[in-house]
Amino acid sequence: MPAIFTPVASLKGQSVASATQFSRADIDALIQLALDMRAHIEAGNTIDALHGRVMTPLFFEDSSRTLSSFCAAMMRLGGNVVNFKVETSSVNKGETLQDTVRTLDAYSDVLVLRHPKEEALEQAIGAATHPVMNAGNGAGEHPSQALLDTLTIHAELGAVDGITIALIGDLKKGRTVHSLLKLLTHNFDLKKVYLVAPAGLEMPQEVLDHVSADVQRRGIQLEQAAGLTPTIVGDCDVLYTTRLQKERFEASATGDADAMAAFAAAKSGLLIDKARLADAKAKMIVMHPLPRVDELSVDVDSDPRAAYFRQMRYGLFMRMAILFSVLA
Amino acid sequence: MPAIFTPVASLKGQSVASATQFSRADIDALIQLALDMRAHIEAGNTIDALHGRVMTPLFFEDSSRTLSSFCAAMMRLGGNVVNFKVETSSVNKGETLQDTVRTLDAYSDVLVLRHPKEEALEQAIGAATHPVMNAGNGAGEHPSQALLDTLTIHAELGAVDGITIALIGDLKKGRTVHSLLKLLTHNFDLKKVYLVAPAGLEMPQEVLDHVSADVQRRGIQLEQAAGLTPTIVGDCDVLYTTRLQKERFEASATGDADAMAAFAAAKSGLLIDKARLADAKAKMIVMHPLPRVDELSVDVDSDPRAAYFRQMRYGLFMRMAILFSVLA
Amino acid sequence: MPAIFTPVASLKGQSVASATQFSRADIDALIQLALDMRAHIEAGNTIDALHGRVMTPLFFEDSSRTLSSFCAAMMRLGGNVVNFKVETSSVNKGETLQDTVRTLDAYSDVLVLRHPKEEALEQAIGAATHPVMNAGNGAGEHPSQALLDTLTIHAELGAVDGITIALIGDLKKGRTVHSLLKLLTHNFDLKKVYLVAPAGLEMPQEVLDHVSADVQRRGIQLEQAAGLTPTIVGDCDVLYTTRLQKERFEASATGDADAMAAFAAAKSGLLIDKARLADAKAKMIVMHPLPRVDELSVDVDSDPRAAYFRQMRYGLFMRMAILFSVLA
Repeated sequence: MPAIFTPVASLKGQSVASATQFSRADIDALIQLALDMRAHIEAGNTIDALHGRVMTPLFFEDSSRTLSSFCAAMMRLGGNVVNFKVETSSVNKGETLQDTVRTLDAYSDVLVLRHPKEEALEQAIGAATHPVMNAGNGAGEHPSQALLDTLTIHAELGAVDGITIALIGDLKKGRTVHSLLKLLTHNFDLKKVYLVAPAGLEMPQEVLDHVSADVQRRGIQLEQAAGLTPTIVGDCDVLYTTRLQKERFEASATGDADAMAAFAAAKSGLLIDKARLADAKAKMIVMHPLPRVDELSVDVDSDPRAAYFRQMRYGLFMRMAILFSVLA
Repeated sequence: MPAIFTPVASLKGQSVASATQFSRADIDALIQLALDMRAHIEAGNTIDALHGRVMTPLFFEDSSRTLSSFCAAMMRLGGNVVNFKVETSSVNKGETLQDTVRTLDAYSDVLVLRHPKEEALEQAIGAATHPVMNAGNGAGEHPSQALLDTLTIHAELGAVDGITIALIGDLKKGRTVHSLLKLLTHNFDLKKVYLVAPAGLEMPQEVLDHVSADVQRRGIQLEQAAGLTPTIVGDCDVLYTTRLQKERFEASATGDADAMAAFAAAKSGLLIDKARLADAKAKMIVMHPLPRVDELSVDVDSDPRAAYFRQMRYGLFMRMAILFSVLA
Repeated sequence: MPAIFTPVASLKGQSVASATQFSRADIDALIQLALDMRAHIEAGNTIDALHGRVMTPLFFEDSSRTLSSFCAAMMRLGGNVVNFKVETSSVNKGETLQDTVRTLDAYSDVLVLRHPKEEALEQAIGAATHPVMNAGNGAGEHPSQALLDTLTIHAELGAVDGITIALIGDLKKGRTVHSLLKLLTHNFDLKKVYLVAPAGLEMPQEVLDHVSADVQRRGIQLEQAAGLTPTIVGDCDVLYTTRLQKERFEASATGDADAMAAFAAAKSGLLIDKARLADAKAKMIVMHPLPRVDELSVDVDSDPRAAYFRQMRYGLFMRMAILFSVLA
């Protein structure tokens, strides 16, 4: 008695390149499908829809978390995963990305690409005859992350329309928050968005330009701040904090004393801990794409509003919904 | 017509942390289940009990042998394995073990942990909502190894009660022999145990203290020796030899000339080869957890009493029995 | 309603060591089976024949392309793959190849060996109780490559008998072309074979000696050339070009100025590009085992005669046919 799930028809055979490619109807349908799959799995059932199908991840950049989430999603749909190791591949023999993609495309039903260069995604989609899932392309997008974040908000709070959300941390280089802001403002009637980042790490103007029409059309309030305040904390349904990506930071700002000072200030002004949550509503959630370092205290972990580990699990179900819709 | 196997009920949903957590009834049931699975598989059948279920190994220390054995066991039950690479994980971004465990726990039905620190196991079990299999925690335990060793003795000799066994080699640091001695003396009426180790590498007093009540209660003879003698070899049903773990040895005894001399002496005094087995009974077995270096000669390999490669195969079936009981 | 495929009976339970072990009847049957599987898969079906069966690759040399092809083949048959990492294995603790093979053999239904030393294959087959697939043994053989090449020619041109083929590039060290020449001349009535290699990189005399009886018996014309000419290009049904394996070349010829000059000359004289194909027949194919570097121009990729990416896909189906026949 296998369960019958309804794939999101518009994704069939499609690459998933950007958070902006999805309509509101797509997103609603993906959320419903993910929740249906969750209910089915958590009732002790399994899914065999992609039995005999093969996914090959091409990770030219480490991201063990995203990789293992995609792998688990494929496996829980009954599919399998070829463990392709970029570091020992023909790339070292001078092969182009396109040739590598075409080779793996010959064996696979779907590819998952992570690459440090933004333009690699388009090259891979151009070379492949099967769908390519974008698992992060440099400073570009990470669409499955934005979708799982949206699923988390919906599942935890009951709706995404009408919420107030703060995006917190390094908003300059954080691909995750760029994708999420675009997806949310394009598709949902948010009440208010706080963009909380220290000087020098603010949301880039090009992202603000990208969303401005949607923000105006929907009447979304947009407020920038340099640090968290009791007012912001008390106003939010979602505090979405991110790691200050020190490794990128240092790499791009060698010897820049102002930038280093900004990093130190950012850490103290953005910290979310038990004391900070005293100002928050009873029904709200704290999210984080993880891994965290010290911007999010472990003393929050036992608070029921700490949604960041549940967020990981929503990621499994959203990626199942995506892969199922693309391949079923 | 799938075979019906009976899981060991007390393991359902439980972590496997220590060889001491199993009752005699548990061990007998695991042995029977493992042998049933072996008969089923060797008759050309397959098992689909864990179809759609996902295991994630977290190996913070290399052990390709234990890892591949657990993976094969999961796959032969119809389940699948997420290939999580610790070396490229968020651990390098400063993530704690608990956060890594919680993340993988969100995708997985069971985790398998190998870690150089003894305390890591408890931390992982505390962080996970799913069962954790201990695949070796520093100087701590390696319970699936002790269980597969017990299965090997039972299957090869017909019984574990009543046997005489010699544990041979580096008994000081050998986690394997610590776990095995505890499991055997706690659950079986052994006749005699020889502990054969050179000076400086004897079985630790704390392990001897741990087993002393069981040894007395069951009337097990316990005899220590510095090397193998014809009497010991001739008396044993099981010669269980282990690698002199030179890499740990040197690390802990830098520049200690006495210890190095002990190592050299140990090698010659403990060597098992064809000549040595001339003193052994016709029905007895030689065991080794492998890999071996030069403490066990290849001239023994063709002797029917050489059980060490069959021991590997018993390991597959014991791990299948464990995973099936935990997850079914 | 699973499809019923007919395994090639003579392969059942056998290791695949050499391209010379197959009869013409075996090859024809493997080609038919591979094409049947392709038709089945491309019609949207899956195969479950090896469900619950486990393959373990042992790759002592990097070959991500061959590895992922074998893995995908096993998975598309419903089987699974243990991800054994040689670099972290007990080999580093001084274990012999035979012991490593015996250990993995205890868990696995089939092993796939890639090893830089030719003699390793025989050692592995001697140690294993299950079949071993040779995925390249040093300067020895790579039989699944030769079989997939033969399948490609058959599927693209309708027949292998009667064709004219040029083997192009480093014919001295190219294991692929050695295996292919042996397999084709032993089993098919080729019309003509051009061996196109620059001075110093010609087909070894021992390979020529090996095939001479078959060549004479079948009346195959054999012609050696130092570079491609319009006559050769226009005469061929198959242009089979290979990478000039610079890394082996440099390793074996340190400081040899003549050899380095030969390498430069070889590159220009052997280049296949759009201009060169102006001389070729309308119905012919260009093949390459990939990865390519600059001996095969990307301006050929869009030509329908460019078969090298389809060749990769034929590789999947040929390895499925092999594994199915060995294990079913």
